[in-house]
Amino acid sequence: MDSSLPQRILLGPGPSVVDPRVYRAMSAPITGHMDPRFLALMKDVRAKLRRVFRADYEVTIPISGTGSAGMEAALVNFLEPGDWVCVLSAGFFAARMADIAHRAGARVHLIETEWGLPTDPERVARELAGKHPKVLAVVHGETSTGVMQPLEPLAQIARDSGALFVVDTVATLGGTPIEVQKLGIDVCYSGSQKCLGCPPGLAPITASERAMEVLRARKTPVQSWYLDLSGVEKYWGSERAYHHTAPISLIYALNEALNLIEEEGLEARWARHARNMAALNAGLAALGLEALAPPEYRMPMLATVRVPAGVDDARVRSRLLDRFNIEIAGGLGPFKGKLWRVGLMGSSSTEANVLLLLAALEMLLAEEGVMSARGAGVAAAQASMTPEAVHA
Amino acid sequence: MDSSLPQRILLGPGPSVVDPRVYRAMSAPITGHMDPRFLALMKDVRAKLRRVFRADYEVTIPISGTGSAGMEAALVNFLEPGDWVCVLSAGFFAARMADIAHRAGARVHLIETEWGLPTDPERVARELAGKHPKVLAVVHGETSTGVMQPLEPLAQIARDSGALFVVDTVATLGGTPIEVQKLGIDVCYSGSQKCLGCPPGLAPITASERAMEVLRARKTPVQSWYLDLSGVEKYWGSERAYHHTAPISLIYALNEALNLIEEEGLEARWARHARNMAALNAGLAALGLEALAPPEYRMPMLATVRVPAGVDDARVRSRLLDRFNIEIAGGLGPFKGKLWRVGLMGSSSTEANVLLLLAALEMLLAEEGVMSARGAGVAAAQASMTPEAVHA
Repeated sequence: MDSSLPQRILLGPGPSVVDPRVYRAMSAPITGHMDPRFLALMKDVRAKLRRVFRADYEVTIPISGTGSAGMEAALVNFLEPGDWVCVLSAGFFAARMADIAHRAGARVHLIETEWGLPTDPERVARELAGKHPKVLAVVHGETSTGVMQPLEPLAQIARDSGALFVVDTVATLGGTPIEVQKLGIDVCYSGSQKCLGCPPGLAPITASERAMEVLRARKTPVQSWYLDLSGVEKYWGSERAYHHTAPISLIYALNEALNLIEEEGLEARWARHARNMAALNAGLAALGLEALAPPEYRMPMLATVRVPAGVDDARVRSRLLDRFNIEIAGGLGPFKGKLWRVGLMGSSSTEANVLLLLAALEMLLAEEGVMSARGAGVAAAQASMTPEAVHA
Repeated sequence: MDSSLPQRILLGPGPSVVDPRVYRAMSAPITGHMDPRFLALMKDVRAKLRRVFRADYEVTIPISGTGSAGMEAALVNFLEPGDWVCVLSAGFFAARMADIAHRAGARVHLIETEWGLPTDPERVARELAGKHPKVLAVVHGETSTGVMQPLEPLAQIARDSGALFVVDTVATLGGTPIEVQKLGIDVCYSGSQKCLGCPPGLAPITASERAMEVLRARKTPVQSWYLDLSGVEKYWGSERAYHHTAPISLIYALNEALNLIEEEGLEARWARHARNMAALNAGLAALGLEALAPPEYRMPMLATVRVPAGVDDARVRSRLLDRFNIEIAGGLGPFKGKLWRVGLMGSSSTEANVLLLLAALEMLLAEEGVMSARGAGVAAAQASMTPEAVHA
């Protein structure tokens, strides 16, 4: 089967390219999931996750599911029927948060912002003045729009209103600074397959003691047995109580991906993402492509640009894939057919990928009748890649 | 990291030993999860799963979670608050079914049977006479007891009472005949890491059209967004609608594990499991170990024997692990410290593993003061491994 699968350069919103070391670790023969050697590894992985989250919260574990399972766990553990939750929605994934909260029987107060813009914290402060939602939930990096939401003012609002602050960092963790504990984020979750550089299938999550107290004080059981953090925690914690069987091979992979992060250094990794995205943005602008997100709110791991008028979105993406083995993504929801989403996440964030994508995209745009000066995108990216910039 | 992990011979209740071909397939570079090549693979995997389930149900997919996620999906999609579900409980995992159904707001009618025995279908028929539960749920192979529950009489009872028949085959699928469609099972799920021979992390599930009609006629949304089969089905089905990101590497692994099953032949695989378990049971009896499950209800992939009086359960299992790299499991719940559970699942079901386990266990039992004639267990197993038996 291996030979029939192409080697893709994954420049979409995840999964990202996985380092060969991670694949090697993943294919090590499995032990049992209650094997003392595996239990020791689980402990290691938890310690490394705490360092990536920048939080020493005891409950820090990889949920045995993809990022969306992390989202569901982050909400259903802390919401009971009738509870009031405020969801800041400015894209596809925040809407999913609201859907999940609805299913948990919570009353959802949705503060909606036009896709492509961040939520205005002053508006949130106004709407929540004198109110006490149990949870304030927000997506840090909306991969549907490319917008990164500043967290600090929202953290203050959550504190002031007494809400648990729940933040989705599925796309951002490992690729940009997120100081979970310093900011007072109560619940933060991510996905393994984006800036963490691991295949999909795990959702790291961390929960503050304050959040766990809310969980312990529940009057009703968590609706999901599988995602009930009190059961999951006993399995991953010192009790080692059997809950479910962890996806052992993926834990091996995550462990090695976290090793790579520690070897690179988290700060260096953040800087690499910022640097390569700056080059990509310069190049995309030089190709005449209009960015969706305002410059000061752009994600450093995902660029979003409008598909130029007269260009066939699907055809360009198919050609990128078939001719150059490069995957980028189209738009979601209202941006279907109208947006390209170019990710530089984890191991995908390299100078080489920036140059290749720009060179290939320029060719295909020319074939679509959109002309820029030959090499304009590459030249602009190169200009932002001077050695001084790299070592700044 | 690879070098620090021991090579275990996994003879517990799962995970089982994984074939090197499966590891190789799993470590192929990933494509995007909406890549046309991956979508084609998803379609293949679904077709192969239908053949393993022996059902041509359209909705046949691997849930992106472990077996317990499959259990939760199999219940929460078909139960609404106030619905009545009958759970046949004779062990640890059936009790989990009841827990999940409770959390879904269902009224649970539990028919409890002593651990170590199968549920008596006549009792079920009596208790359900004139009643109409929405779901009748049962565990096919209870790994907490080693008992395999005959399904045919229960299928008839489910039909008669108009209930959806939900069957847990986490431990049994691929290791013993299960004719899902012929029996009229409406919802059947399994786990990737037992007789299917894949690492843990996926829960294959199949649901009849009748079950899907119940899902479509719901008045309330499925409480879990992540496990909502209507969303998952659109992702895996012809709509290819984005739902969550599939655990791509595990799908590669499952695909190859299913290839191995097709190459061996499902019937040959069933026969292999039965044959090797017969040899193991003969050997365990010759060592003087008392089986828990009655002979006619024993699982062909898991033996359960009582820990002899005076023997330290944990010490024997630790020595098996440390000295021989062999994992077996202890008891759950009321059998903690009192039961050994020896699995021969998937690639773990070999004559070599039977002989090695018996030889090693006999040595350790002798060290614990339990003496049998030297080589007695191995001799008994050998006697059941004559070439005639193998080719019978």
